[in-house]
Amino acid sequence: MTIIYFDQAASSFPKPASVALAVAKAINEYGANPGRGGHQLANKAASIIYETRVKVAKLFGERDPNNVIFCQNTTHALNQAIKGLGLKKGDHVISTTYEHNSVRRPLEFLKREVGITITYLESDHNGGIAKEQLLKEITPETRLVVSSHGSNLTGAIFPVEMLGSVCFEKGITFLVDAAQTAGVIPINMEEMHIDMLAFPGHKGLLGPQGTGGLIVKKGTELVPLIHGGTGSQSENDDQPNETPYRYESGTLNTPAIAGLSAGIDEVNKVGIENIYKHEWRLTKYALDKLVTLDGVTVFGPDSHKERLAVIPFVIDGTDAQEIAMIFDQHYQVALRAGLHCTPLAHQTLGTLAGGTLRASFGLYNTVEEIDSWIEMIKEIKEGLVG
Amino acid sequence: MTIIYFDQAASSFPKPASVALAVAKAINEYGANPGRGGHQLANKAASIIYETRVKVAKLFGERDPNNVIFCQNTTHALNQAIKGLGLKKGDHVISTTYEHNSVRRPLEFLKREVGITITYLESDHNGGIAKEQLLKEITPETRLVVSSHGSNLTGAIFPVEMLGSVCFEKGITFLVDAAQTAGVIPINMEEMHIDMLAFPGHKGLLGPQGTGGLIVKKGTELVPLIHGGTGSQSENDDQPNETPYRYESGTLNTPAIAGLSAGIDEVNKVGIENIYKHEWRLTKYALDKLVTLDGVTVFGPDSHKERLAVIPFVIDGTDAQEIAMIFDQHYQVALRAGLHCTPLAHQTLGTLAGGTLRASFGLYNTVEEIDSWIEMIKEIKEGLVG
Repeated sequence: MTIIYFDQAASSFPKPASVALAVAKAINEYGANPGRGGHQLANKAASIIYETRVKVAKLFGERDPNNVIFCQNTTHALNQAIKGLGLKKGDHVISTTYEHNSVRRPLEFLKREVGITITYLESDHNGGIAKEQLLKEITPETRLVVSSHGSNLTGAIFPVEMLGSVCFEKGITFLVDAAQTAGVIPINMEEMHIDMLAFPGHKGLLGPQGTGGLIVKKGTELVPLIHGGTGSQSENDDQPNETPYRYESGTLNTPAIAGLSAGIDEVNKVGIENIYKHEWRLTKYALDKLVTLDGVTVFGPDSHKERLAVIPFVIDGTDAQEIAMIFDQHYQVALRAGLHCTPLAHQTLGTLAGGTLRASFGLYNTVEEIDSWIEMIKEIKEGLVG
Repeated sequence: MTIIYFDQAASSFPKPASVALAVAKAINEYGANPGRGGHQLANKAASIIYETRVKVAKLFGERDPNNVIFCQNTTHALNQAIKGLGLKKGDHVISTTYEHNSVRRPLEFLKREVGITITYLESDHNGGIAKEQLLKEITPETRLVVSSHGSNLTGAIFPVEMLGSVCFEKGITFLVDAAQTAGVIPINMEEMHIDMLAFPGHKGLLGPQGTGGLIVKKGTELVPLIHGGTGSQSENDDQPNETPYRYESGTLNTPAIAGLSAGIDEVNKVGIENIYKHEWRLTKYALDKLVTLDGVTVFGPDSHKERLAVIPFVIDGTDAQEIAMIFDQHYQVALRAGLHCTPLAHQTLGTLAGGTLRASFGLYNTVEEIDSWIEMIKEIKEGLVG
């Protein structure tokens, strides 16, 4: 029985066949340390990494590929961005209640350790945040606005253009967490006034785990999160100033970056607009079916409102963890139950105690899979709830 | 023409064929996010990671696999260890002049930002550090001793047993950088009184780049370098206390960890003692040939003194960078020229200005390769120096 994989928001699966091939090729044919030698294997590794920087920069509207910093994952990127700003006691940060713990925990850490203050804006269930609401919260101490581009819990899309233009006017650094949108919604850092963009490689960009990065626009200076060998200016006891080396100490994950490059090629071949259209079509299709089912509660944006391919739901009167296990073991459907690392968002939804189930779709999911899944929900409901 | 790869100290190459296969299998067959779902693909990913923790723990004499924290590379591990200790103004750290910038730069960062003080012990050219010298430098403020296990520049092996036993007696935290020794020299954290061990996955352990880790013995508490989603205790705005999750926020590099597991299997199959014997035999063989050559200066330990398979040398009257390029382009030999991220060590050797060439050997190098290389050195010398 084939697995139906509806956990795309955690990691996309399957990957294009070219991804594992590119990774294996890097390991077997040029497994040297990029930029640490001058020899041909090291140069080959370094050039694959540079090509990938170019692709990433182009994808997100950044002119200088050297402003693309590769990280182990989005969390690493967000920590570099948030902790790297050198925020001081009394500095103020504005964020939202929909942030993943990869934003919230670094912020709360700085609140405890450094004494920053934080305002979490609430959005409406459709992802709306009023400009007046943001303007009201800005103080002379506001140094950073950080927002997710789309919710990993409800799929709601947040108004990053508005947030960006306000930050631009006010001279506040704007950081966007594109964990759920990179490769799915077009992002142009320049047009959207995004100063720092954190992105995963292993979700919408179809690359392997172990990839992701932070793009830091010129003019934003960060304290490196990690100090170490950079293969340049070795005699300096501080990091070099040049990006990306300043922020990329230690041996890079060359094989996985080669895989990311192959993943981005696939995204470009299909086209981000087409990927989004496909995912929204699946989501709308699933939502339209789900709302006809009695005893199933769907959270998040109104069903006609465009969102990411993420649907949080519960079968009334059942335990989310138990249902997830039935899907997994009886039906071979991979989806998640729990808080999805976004406790404040669950508080807003009123689902903090039990969490929800979350189904998330991707490029390779099909309408037929959703049809099967809807039938399974009916069976489970009949069997458990009657 | 086959490449002779003598840059093993930067990254081992080639890898066992099983490594790329394991990585590709992970990408293609269970590319889900480990521990973030409960479904079978996530569980498969989580179990591969756990099995690898068990192998790593066993290899280094750590009882609890959950004390193995996977990191992107050794530099990341060393930053977590050094910055995580929460050192305060006036705290004192003892290290050595042979440290890689992955130790020196985090320490110097804390010196500038926090006000710690640092003593760099000098070792003799054979790697010797006198116990009295260490004891003399210890003050009541000494909180940490950090030493590389072996030099990436000269191959000298440092007396970590002595350092460890003194730290144990004095109640000082002892951190070892095993970048050059993991998989080559037996390490037992308990017997050697090592509190924290940073290791790479892509050197002696024969795994892919993007792997490495920090083993933190019970009783050593660190502030996480990276805060974020841990898949557990999502409602807590701080990190959970449980290792390894406390220190492993964000999606792990599952495919590469699967590859590391395959690399460690190969190390165990050959046996660390046999790997060391092979590498020392190659090194001794090369050293014996090199000392017969006029106009070639070899640095590091005396040629009869056991060391890692690393040989720094210069051809007198020539430029190291230029010679490396000739090796690469004319002879297809991959080796490095430069400072190798260890400026203080070069200062000690008197080679800070020009750097050295460095040849480093590994499990799959052969005596025949060394014979060819020695002939090339003769040719180059005759061509350039006459």
